[in-house]
Amino acid sequence: MAKYPGVSPSVTRRLPRYYRFLGELMKKGVERISSREFAEIIGLTASQIRQDLNCFGGFGQQGYGYNVASLHNAIGNIMQLDQKTPAILIGAGNLGIAITRHMEFEKRGFQLLAIFDSNPEIIGRKIREWAVQDSAGLDAFCKEHQPKAAILCIPRTAAPAIVDQLVRGGVRGFWNFTHYDLTMVYGDSIAVENVHLGDSLMTLSFYVNELLESEQEKQTT
Amino acid sequence: MAKYPGVSPSVTRRLPRYYRFLGELMKKGVERISSREFAEIIGLTASQIRQDLNCFGGFGQQGYGYNVASLHNAIGNIMQLDQKTPAILIGAGNLGIAITRHMEFEKRGFQLLAIFDSNPEIIGRKIREWAVQDSAGLDAFCKEHQPKAAILCIPRTAAPAIVDQLVRGGVRGFWNFTHYDLTMVYGDSIAVENVHLGDSLMTLSFYVNELLESEQEKQTT
Repeated sequence: MAKYPGVSPSVTRRLPRYYRFLGELMKKGVERISSREFAEIIGLTASQIRQDLNCFGGFGQQGYGYNVASLHNAIGNIMQLDQKTPAILIGAGNLGIAITRHMEFEKRGFQLLAIFDSNPEIIGRKIREWAVQDSAGLDAFCKEHQPKAAILCIPRTAAPAIVDQLVRGGVRGFWNFTHYDLTMVYGDSIAVENVHLGDSLMTLSFYVNELLESEQEKQTT
Repeated sequence: MAKYPGVSPSVTRRLPRYYRFLGELMKKGVERISSREFAEIIGLTASQIRQDLNCFGGFGQQGYGYNVASLHNAIGNIMQLDQKTPAILIGAGNLGIAITRHMEFEKRGFQLLAIFDSNPEIIGRKIREWAVQDSAGLDAFCKEHQPKAAILCIPRTAAPAIVDQLVRGGVRGFWNFTHYDLTMVYGDSIAVENVHLGDSLMTLSFYVNELLESEQEKQTT
C-alpha cells in the first residue's frame, strides 16, 4: 500500500515549498526555527504548517520549534528524493533542451537515463551528457533499462501514441508538459504531474489586470 | 477597485482549466453541456464548479446546463485575456527561447513587446519575430513602451536587481521562473505567478513512488 494514502493533494503539493525554504535556511546556517517564524517565511499560518506535517507524522517540538536540517531531511524522505527514480525525456526541442540543461534531476528524486526524439536532425545531438536517441528504439530501451518515469516535451498530437507505448513499457510517472489529459485516459494507474504553462500565464493575466485596475482607480479618485 | 476582490486563489487558479476544457468542447462542436457532464470532464463535482462560477456571477441555467461558447467567452473575460497586457521577457537562454517559441502570448492575455539579455553573444539573435535586445536599454525601453508584465527567465542571483529596476519602470506583473521570492519583497504591490518546475518534479517523485510501492505490494501478496 502507499505509505501516505489519503493525504490531500494540496498538502502534498506544499511539501516541495517547505523543502525549498528549509534548504535555504540551512544555507544561511539557521539550525532551528519557531513554527511562527517558519510560517511567516512560507506565507502560511503556523497551525496550517502543523496540520500539514501531522499528515506525515508531525515533526515539531512544543517550545522548541523545528530543527531545520532534520525537517528538511524528513520532508525529502517523504517525497522519496533519494529513490532517484529512473526517467527518460521525450522530445528534445527547445523545451526539452531547457529542462535537460536546467533541471537538477537527482536533487528532485530522479535519474535521467536518456533523451529521445524522432527528428533525424536532432537525433545524435548531445545535451549535457546525454546524446539524443532515436524514438524508434524506445521499446527496446524500456525493456532493457526499465525507466519508471517520463518527461513529456512533445506536441500534444504525438502524446497519445507515445504515452501508450511508455505505459506498456512499464513507465508509471509522467511529468507532462503537453495538454494531453493522461488522467482522463489512465486514471489512477499512473502518476501524473501536469505543467500547464499556458494556464499559469492566464492566471497572471487575471491578477495583473485586477492590480492595474485598482491602481488606476486610486489615481483617479 | 479590483473587479473580483476576495475570490480565493484556488478558485481563480481553476479558471484557466475551465477555459481550456471549454475551448476543447468548442473545437469538438459541443454547444451545450450539463453541469454534471462538464464536472466529469474537468474532474470536479458539479457543485464545486457552480460554487466557483458563482464567485464571478454564475453562468449556468437550471435544466439547461452551460452554453459552452458563452461560458468560454465569459471566463476569458474574467481573466481579461483581451487586454493583451504589454510584456517583456528577460533572459534569452534555453528556457526563455523555449517559452518565446511555444507560448501563445496573445491567447493568454499578453502581448510580448521585446526580449532582453545581457550576454553579448545572445544580444541581436532573433527568436520568432523578436531580436534580443541589450538589457542595458531596459530603463529607456520601459519609459517609452510601458510594459506592465515581465517574464523572468534569468538566474536567481540576477533577479533582485532586475526586478527592482522593472518595478521602478512600472512593471506590475511577473511570470517568475526563478526561485527569487518576489512576494516576500514586494508584497501585494505586484502580481506574481511563480513557476517552480523543481517543486513540480518533486511532487511527481512523491506520487510515482507511492504508486510503485503499492504496485509492488500487490505483486508480492
